[in-house]
Amino acid sequence: MDNFRFKSATRILFGKGLETQVGEEIAGKYKKVLIHYGGTHVVKSGLVDRVTKSLEAQQVEFVFLDGVVPNPRLTLVHSGIELCRNEGVDFILAIGGGSTIDSAKAIALGVPYAGDVWDFYTGVASPESALPVGTILTIPGSGSEMSESSIITHEEKKLKYGIDNELIVPEFSVLNPEMCLTIPPRLMAAGIADILSHLMERYFTPTKQTILSDYLLEGAMKAVMEAGLKLMADPKNYDHAAEIMWSATVAHNGMLSSGRVEDWASHRIEHEISALYDVTHGAGMAMVFPSWMRVVMDADIERFCRFASEVFGIAEKDNREEQAESGIQALEGFFTALGLQIRLSEAGVPIDQFELMAKKATQNSEWVGNFKKINAEDIVKILEMAV
Amino acid sequence: MDNFRFKSATRILFGKGLETQVGEEIAGKYKKVLIHYGGTHVVKSGLVDRVTKSLEAQQVEFVFLDGVVPNPRLTLVHSGIELCRNEGVDFILAIGGGSTIDSAKAIALGVPYAGDVWDFYTGVASPESALPVGTILTIPGSGSEMSESSIITHEEKKLKYGIDNELIVPEFSVLNPEMCLTIPPRLMAAGIADILSHLMERYFTPTKQTILSDYLLEGAMKAVMEAGLKLMADPKNYDHAAEIMWSATVAHNGMLSSGRVEDWASHRIEHEISALYDVTHGAGMAMVFPSWMRVVMDADIERFCRFASEVFGIAEKDNREEQAESGIQALEGFFTALGLQIRLSEAGVPIDQFELMAKKATQNSEWVGNFKKINAEDIVKILEMAV
Repeated sequence: MDNFRFKSATRILFGKGLETQVGEEIAGKYKKVLIHYGGTHVVKSGLVDRVTKSLEAQQVEFVFLDGVVPNPRLTLVHSGIELCRNEGVDFILAIGGGSTIDSAKAIALGVPYAGDVWDFYTGVASPESALPVGTILTIPGSGSEMSESSIITHEEKKLKYGIDNELIVPEFSVLNPEMCLTIPPRLMAAGIADILSHLMERYFTPTKQTILSDYLLEGAMKAVMEAGLKLMADPKNYDHAAEIMWSATVAHNGMLSSGRVEDWASHRIEHEISALYDVTHGAGMAMVFPSWMRVVMDADIERFCRFASEVFGIAEKDNREEQAESGIQALEGFFTALGLQIRLSEAGVPIDQFELMAKKATQNSEWVGNFKKINAEDIVKILEMAV
Repeated sequence: MDNFRFKSATRILFGKGLETQVGEEIAGKYKKVLIHYGGTHVVKSGLVDRVTKSLEAQQVEFVFLDGVVPNPRLTLVHSGIELCRNEGVDFILAIGGGSTIDSAKAIALGVPYAGDVWDFYTGVASPESALPVGTILTIPGSGSEMSESSIITHEEKKLKYGIDNELIVPEFSVLNPEMCLTIPPRLMAAGIADILSHLMERYFTPTKQTILSDYLLEGAMKAVMEAGLKLMADPKNYDHAAEIMWSATVAHNGMLSSGRVEDWASHRIEHEISALYDVTHGAGMAMVFPSWMRVVMDADIERFCRFASEVFGIAEKDNREEQAESGIQALEGFFTALGLQIRLSEAGVPIDQFELMAKKATQNSEWVGNFKKINAEDIVKILEMAV
């Protein structure tokens, strides 16, 4: 097991109707809140109203910034930073899914920084402080509600970069599974694929002894698949939604994979697709992951065989390539059962930009990934296999 | 899934030699540390010396209080509280296992409280503040290094009571698996049994839908058994020790069982044994748990059948009682393989005090446990079955 540091300080409030307690979480500590969200759904559903009533009841002031879109944009982050400075905001409350939370985290980093917040995403500078962030999660998947990650798109440059920093771990997150009961099936399926891919990025590791984290990750993968299919079949079922909502958080808060090296090449590749074509991230993961697996599995075929047998219950085959391939096909079967497309061609992604995507994915280092270090040529191969 | 709140704010420093960084964790925030430990082993091994050097290098002052024994005593806690007040201590550093950490937490609660700290353990009063605690873990098992629990023995009254409160979650914990390489096999076996029992107390639940937490708990149980047997066979193996050390923490920090009701009757019963006879807690759990299972399994036989098949890989039997019993026998086989005794008679526990133990275990409420609510009569039955 590798040395590690772990801390996950987010206070989770999980259950029905807990968004009405948000005022009590903030009052006494902070004075003025930026309420940050995306489209009109959270307004029409009455959610924003319940939140503002809770803040008003505790005499907490607030201002609004809406307009977050999937693959959240740097320009809106810049607007948010200016707004917070002008209004003396000292707390940022994200109401939404991963995009809104990531946008809120970027604003939180930018407010106390004299330069351009994009510096933190390119690695030119490191943040020293950030405003505190709280979240009310509406779409599970990203895990951003308990993670130290934020991913932002520079829309002019068509770049999508991320930062991991303890400063942006949310102070609290409200997880009310009732929010999941009105999510369109296409988005829910993408969220489930994203959760599973967060677990798989951790599972495919070069670290040698990983007894506990292997079993925990396998258990979480089985749970996400079981609960995910149940929820897709019965989208108004609170209990199934609760399993998926909490799985998303647990998958990405770091505890299940402490002490092992993670991979993340598939995410790096998918980000290039969604930076160019605005594909929903989780839907993109379902297209990239199986091809990534086929290209890298020779680095440790036994890990893929274990994945097939432990996660999908596939009986052991003497031919190890066949055993590994069975697991990958079972994964494709799961994505398909969710209603997701597993081919780029079906999603309308043109095949003429693969060289460009590969170049952008490797522009900061010659290779990406850790299970197997892959270069631009490998990335083109993965994208071609995914057509 | 039940509503829940979850927060686990302990910063974990996991790996070789990290106890020498303890000064940096404390410096700048606190001025004077109580170093709290048990016997001479941590002094002779040089551990206390490495810690004091790290504190001195950061100009942090310290005083000592040693003498913690298994089933830590209230009288020593009282001495610690007085010492901290007289010396102006503002941080408590426990060097040891669960007993030392629990003792440190009790002192931390007592320093700012005008009454007797025992009030918090009997439930007469609730704490409003506590000194911060840090830990350097030497014996894995209790999980106290990342938990909100502390259990103290009132030696005059022969009472062993616990408190759960967020105020006593450690600020940081250093987990160096090298510390596990010199633990006597008898104590290590007891620690492994304790870890497994923490997972089982969570697994046997009356909560109905528990997809994610079931898979996570089953995975953790399999990991503890696999790594535990490997470590007992090869006690100087760092990697095996690392798995057990981190398993102990993960088993008891609350994340694996969020959203489900836990049981804890077996712990309640074991505490009565160790309060009277100073049996090592984990060793006592190996004696109590199988009998508890046999007495309560009729409340939900299918949960015990799943335990047998998922945790021990036992093939499904049509006769469900037989299937459940196979799992219990497999658990007894595991305890025996660790070198533990599974009968009270072997441990020299007299059989004439069962009525008294049962009475004490139920003196605050008529019943204990949640998977099945059991009364004093059931407890006597469990103890008789364990003879």
